[in-house]
Amino acid sequence: MSDLLSGPVEVVGAGLIGTSIALACRRAGVDVVLTDTSAEHVLTATALGAGRAKVPADVPSLVVVAVPPDHLGAAIAAALDASLEAGGEDTVVTDVGSVKAAPLAALSGHPAVARYVGSHPMAGSERSGPLAASADLFSGRPWAICRHDRAAANAVRRVAALVEACGAVAVMLTPDEHDRAVARTSHVPHLMSSLVAGTLAGAAPEHLALTGQGVRDVTRVAGGDPALYSQIISGNSQAVAGLLREVRDRLDLALEAVSAGDRGGLESLLAHGLAGTRAIPGKHGGPVQVVAAVNVAVPDHPGELARLFADVGESGVNIEDVRIDHDPGRAVGLVELDVAEAKAEGLMSALESKGWVTHR
Amino acid sequence: MSDLLSGPVEVVGAGLIGTSIALACRRAGVDVVLTDTSAEHVLTATALGAGRAKVPADVPSLVVVAVPPDHLGAAIAAALDASLEAGGEDTVVTDVGSVKAAPLAALSGHPAVARYVGSHPMAGSERSGPLAASADLFSGRPWAICRHDRAAANAVRRVAALVEACGAVAVMLTPDEHDRAVARTSHVPHLMSSLVAGTLAGAAPEHLALTGQGVRDVTRVAGGDPALYSQIISGNSQAVAGLLREVRDRLDLALEAVSAGDRGGLESLLAHGLAGTRAIPGKHGGPVQVVAAVNVAVPDHPGELARLFADVGESGVNIEDVRIDHDPGRAVGLVELDVAEAKAEGLMSALESKGWVTHR
Repeated sequence: MSDLLSGPVEVVGAGLIGTSIALACRRAGVDVVLTDTSAEHVLTATALGAGRAKVPADVPSLVVVAVPPDHLGAAIAAALDASLEAGGEDTVVTDVGSVKAAPLAALSGHPAVARYVGSHPMAGSERSGPLAASADLFSGRPWAICRHDRAAANAVRRVAALVEACGAVAVMLTPDEHDRAVARTSHVPHLMSSLVAGTLAGAAPEHLALTGQGVRDVTRVAGGDPALYSQIISGNSQAVAGLLREVRDRLDLALEAVSAGDRGGLESLLAHGLAGTRAIPGKHGGPVQVVAAVNVAVPDHPGELARLFADVGESGVNIEDVRIDHDPGRAVGLVELDVAEAKAEGLMSALESKGWVTHR
Repeated sequence: MSDLLSGPVEVVGAGLIGTSIALACRRAGVDVVLTDTSAEHVLTATALGAGRAKVPADVPSLVVVAVPPDHLGAAIAAALDASLEAGGEDTVVTDVGSVKAAPLAALSGHPAVARYVGSHPMAGSERSGPLAASADLFSGRPWAICRHDRAAANAVRRVAALVEACGAVAVMLTPDEHDRAVARTSHVPHLMSSLVAGTLAGAAPEHLALTGQGVRDVTRVAGGDPALYSQIISGNSQAVAGLLREVRDRLDLALEAVSAGDRGGLESLLAHGLAGTRAIPGKHGGPVQVVAAVNVAVPDHPGELARLFADVGESGVNIEDVRIDHDPGRAVGLVELDVAEAKAEGLMSALESKGWVTHR
């Protein structure tokens, strides 16, 4: 374990995220103490091996505030206040909320603001509560650390040690940068996905019968909890509104181009989108790889996927992504295997030699 | 083979879609003749076993026009004209274009319009040309048949026989309904995906480091060819513009709600989106199934996926969908297995007993 995390790490809020952090820290040999407004959550988390209930003598080296968005600001201030009262002048406080500028602004007059450094792990689950927690939740995921002007260098290092203990990949950003980044990579895409999904509500079933994989992909994130996402997006209103205005202006351009039959204008908007898809970082943060899709017809019952992947494994071709196409009306699924462009033909030959029906 | 398709089926345009239809028909025992402005395409397609080059004596029972969107109208009219000249008064003409009202309107004065019934298979590939064709391209996919007021019943039946020969699932819609349906299920989602992707173009790389699976899903279809999609969307401008105006109005509401801190308003927009995701038909056209995601950490090299799916197969749990999460910075992938809610715990126990690290 990192020396920076000696002395207990206190996790405030033993929900999914807090308990997962606690489990990862325990696995890394760190002493963890837990607090929660729900005594039951603390009992459950300790029973899972996520640490022990906090006692008054504990002076934490690091407090991780992992409470719902609406309670973050108060909980962060309370943790800093408590550290002053307890004489814990070395105690660092972080939080794991989805927005970073507003909580910092609320602390601007706090005498211990140098010891607060916000952070944001890019991981979650549709489930909640300590029973859903896992020490592996953050494994390999980006985790933003939001250094601000008044932050102590030691405080940043301690939060970085937490990120490392959780197996995540640190991304250093200022709070403002972070909020603009997640507006772009998460909040606005979520809103747009939700607007598209909204057009399907109440549509005629025979029209929805033409639904393909494309619109399913576009609307997937709109399946998230509206109450939670309205909290998150409202907490980042300035960055979201700014970017949403840009999108609205481009939507107006698209609408004009479609209405006027301006095919060149429409094509240039679509080309701008294509350029955007190519800006997304590739697997493992490396350069974007050109992948090709190989489609395989697979009978829809257990065992067939195993047989397919055994044959894929034997071919030696690495699979970048997989999807199973939901086909209406037939008991045969299409499995799409995304592989490096140069490997596609080889994979198809290998699978066809084993009797699979493939196409690109 | 169906008696309705006795006498040759003529495929006009031996590209990906046309050659795939020809291959499926040949497999069903149907005589297929091919024409294309490219003699090379016809040679390639015939060499693939997709039929034979058309000779003047051939009077087709069905002509399938599978040419690029810009040439559809002229090619459909030419096929009807040719049938009149050849005395082929029983010849039916269909096409496989992405929009259906405009081509029909262009034929409104044609004496043989009763023998034209447009159709639209919901299948494709990012590749093109006869070499990319497959007899299985349409297997289990929806295929719209667009009966119009003046269509002969016999013509509709013959197109339905084609759909059946290709292994697809017929969906009966009027041309107007079809165009409104694909505006909703395909064209507007594509435009919105492209607008979201456009916000990523030129974004700072350290911001894009926070990119998660959500925005990748939302922007996936924006990777399509801008020239092709601008043709397709322009051909359906009325339906697309109408729906896009609705979306723009809702986007304005979202922008107002975000700017004004109206969290209730934002939540109700998001709830409308959630309702839309639930309207999408489930696998095999059945009722939507509640699926749960089980995440499994998998070392990123060949063979591991095979081992995973062998263990999944042994567990007897059917997998509804799979995705591989692209993690930055680590050589371990997360595989998400979507299974029926009631099966999730059992699958997790089964996999953990084999040494896999899982979480929900």
